Amino acid sequence: MLNFDFHNPTRIAFGDDSVPKLGKLVPAAARVLILYGGESAEKNGTLDAVRAALGARAFVEFGGIEPNPRFETLMQAVETARRENVDFLLAVGGGSVIDGTKFVAAAIPYKGDPWEIVTSFGTRVQTAIPFGTVLTLPATGSEMNNGAVISRRDGVDKLPFSSRKVFPQFSVLDPTRSATLPQRQVANGIVDAYVHILEQYLTYPVGALVQDRLAEGLLQVLIEVGPRTLAEPRDYTARANLTWTATLALNGLIGAGVPQDWSTHLIGHELTALFGLDHARSLAVVLPAMLSERRGEKQEKLAQYAARVWRIEAGDPTVAADAGIERTREFFETLGVPTHLSAYGIGDTEIERVVARLVEHGMTALGERREVTPEICRRVLASAL
Amino acid sequence: MLNFDFHNPTRIAFGDDSVPKLGKLVPAAARVLILYGGESAEKNGTLDAVRAALGARAFVEFGGIEPNPRFETLMQAVETARRENVDFLLAVGGGSVIDGTKFVAAAIPYKGDPWEIVTSFGTRVQTAIPFGTVLTLPATGSEMNNGAVISRRDGVDKLPFSSRKVFPQFSVLDPTRSATLPQRQVANGIVDAYVHILEQYLTYPVGALVQDRLAEGLLQVLIEVGPRTLAEPRDYTARANLTWTATLALNGLIGAGVPQDWSTHLIGHELTALFGLDHARSLAVVLPAMLSERRGEKQEKLAQYAARVWRIEAGDPTVAADAGIERTREFFETLGVPTHLSAYGIGDTEIERVVARLVEHGMTALGERREVTPEICRRVLASAL
Repeated sequence: MLNFDFHNPTRIAFGDDSVPKLGKLVPAAARVLILYGGESAEKNGTLDAVRAALGARAFVEFGGIEPNPRFETLMQAVETARRENVDFLLAVGGGSVIDGTKFVAAAIPYKGDPWEIVTSFGTRVQTAIPFGTVLTLPATGSEMNNGAVISRRDGVDKLPFSSRKVFPQFSVLDPTRSATLPQRQVANGIVDAYVHILEQYLTYPVGALVQDRLAEGLLQVLIEVGPRTLAEPRDYTARANLTWTATLALNGLIGAGVPQDWSTHLIGHELTALFGLDHARSLAVVLPAMLSERRGEKQEKLAQYAARVWRIEAGDPTVAADAGIERTREFFETLGVPTHLSAYGIGDTEIERVVARLVEHGMTALGERREVTPEICRRVLASAL
Repeated sequence: MLNFDFHNPTRIAFGDDSVPKLGKLVPAAARVLILYGGESAEKNGTLDAVRAALGARAFVEFGGIEPNPRFETLMQAVETARRENVDFLLAVGGGSVIDGTKFVAAAIPYKGDPWEIVTSFGTRVQTAIPFGTVLTLPATGSEMNNGAVISRRDGVDKLPFSSRKVFPQFSVLDPTRSATLPQRQVANGIVDAYVHILEQYLTYPVGALVQDRLAEGLLQVLIEVGPRTLAEPRDYTARANLTWTATLALNGLIGAGVPQDWSTHLIGHELTALFGLDHARSLAVVLPAMLSERRGEKQEKLAQYAARVWRIEAGDPTVAADAGIERTREFFETLGVPTHLSAYGIGDTEIERVVARLVEHGMTALGERREVTPEICRRVLASAL
């Protein structure tokens, strides 16, 4: 096990009765800015439930945060917050709204150009105003971590930042709030959480038996409840377990003390920025191709994954590894998420554009050993066609 | 899954390089009281490493906190802290020292008789002074939770309290610091952590698939690394995984959203108070007998436990349940921890004394359904002879 620091101060209020708990979770004297995305939070009643729970507190609202939240949009929220002397933010939405809120929380008190928050990867964040979240889409884990991904230039830049100052103070997780989501978003959330786990798990062994078991357990839950959640949107047990798994997939726990990969995410970000693929769909395309490309380096963990998660009994570890990759691909396809670029209308002539963006963004040595070069990215994309 | 609140703000600094991190973790201007137990912390160099890490900070020391820490001893530490105007506590030791430090932290500012902190189960704690810990014995999980068990009246009373105010601010977990422990203490720690997990896991199904998988994973790690840690005290991987598992076994994560039992602990506390059994040994005696007594109520989870943790393939769930209980007993015995009262010189004439104490302490309706009556406790103890 590698040495590590772990700290996650976010309080979780989980359950079908949890939105009214905002009444106690939000400071009594707070002046609140509610941030949300599209119309669904209004239509499905979540915004009304949030307003009711805030009681007599003063609040203003800022809607329209888009998927892959953009700097330009978020700076409008910053202006609103500054003008209205807001001292607490409340994100109501999925990962994009929560990521955007983290940026807004850090940008409000920031001296200088707030885009530096992103270009410094968060290292320039000295302070942020406090915020909580009401999660409406289990997927990214942003509700219990201190990371965010922000886009700019009409989405051509899509870059991550993190800071200890942007942990949510609390997150309200009411699984029923996601029951009316389109199937596509639910499926995306399952894939997103699954790939988050694999980015932290499928590297090389370091004797982190605890983290391995926890990761394998979360993967097994997703395999069990993913299809159930899609087939039966009102199955509370399935949805609750999906929700809690997606949160734990990226709250620091399974990633503490182990090497981490994230090459799939960083390539996927470029696919989203260039071609508008949903985040999860970009991961579903890149991951199986990346695992196949690097199955030599990752063989030990791939074989363990195949045996423990998929119960593949193969004597030969290379056979087991390949079978595990294949089962992963099938799982995504079963959820209705295609795993080839061609399914999204992207052909081989686009590969160089993706590689050029990676180089432009300094992403030239990715993965747990920093050995994923642009040339390897090119091969991965070619095999994902 | 049951609704739940989860919040754990303790920072963990984990690894073989972590004691020097105290230099950053303890506030720079703190006036520190170091609390510890017996001579081992001095002999094995941990206290010296702690003193060095504190640098120029002012500190005083209080040693002699005993296993099953006593109110009378801890009140001496409270007097020292008050006299010396201490504003930060640092526990250096295992669960007893850390539990005791939680009491001291709450008692220093307490107005009134501090024993009320315990008799109110912590509900009267309004504030506590901040503290951190340096763990030297993986076992109780106290280093990352807000509970403590305090004894009084020459140990005849042994009672738990908890409060949101007594989470450690940080805990330093250096697995190498426990490498010189006596085998008996290491074995006790493994049993303690194992039973902590089972008290939260072996109840009845509520569709908490996530919590089940995490608990099963931690149990599997203990089964794998427990004997290894005893056989090879310098096996860092085994010890590191034991350490992190013992912490995660009782940090709130696997217990959030599920029913919990704890009847074994509450009966075990009386055995320790009356006869001086090590805490873990009291659990090793009570648990298998309790599971056998209640195998009807617990059958579904017992069968799941047998299948997933012990890989017992039995068609009949009652056969699987019994086999799972038997494997548990064997595991404890293999670690050198006897599972019968007779091994500790306790005969059937003592059973009524234990039951009388339980009644005196109000422990008349224990377990996840509050159905464990004194009569059931009597049967459990009789079958544990």
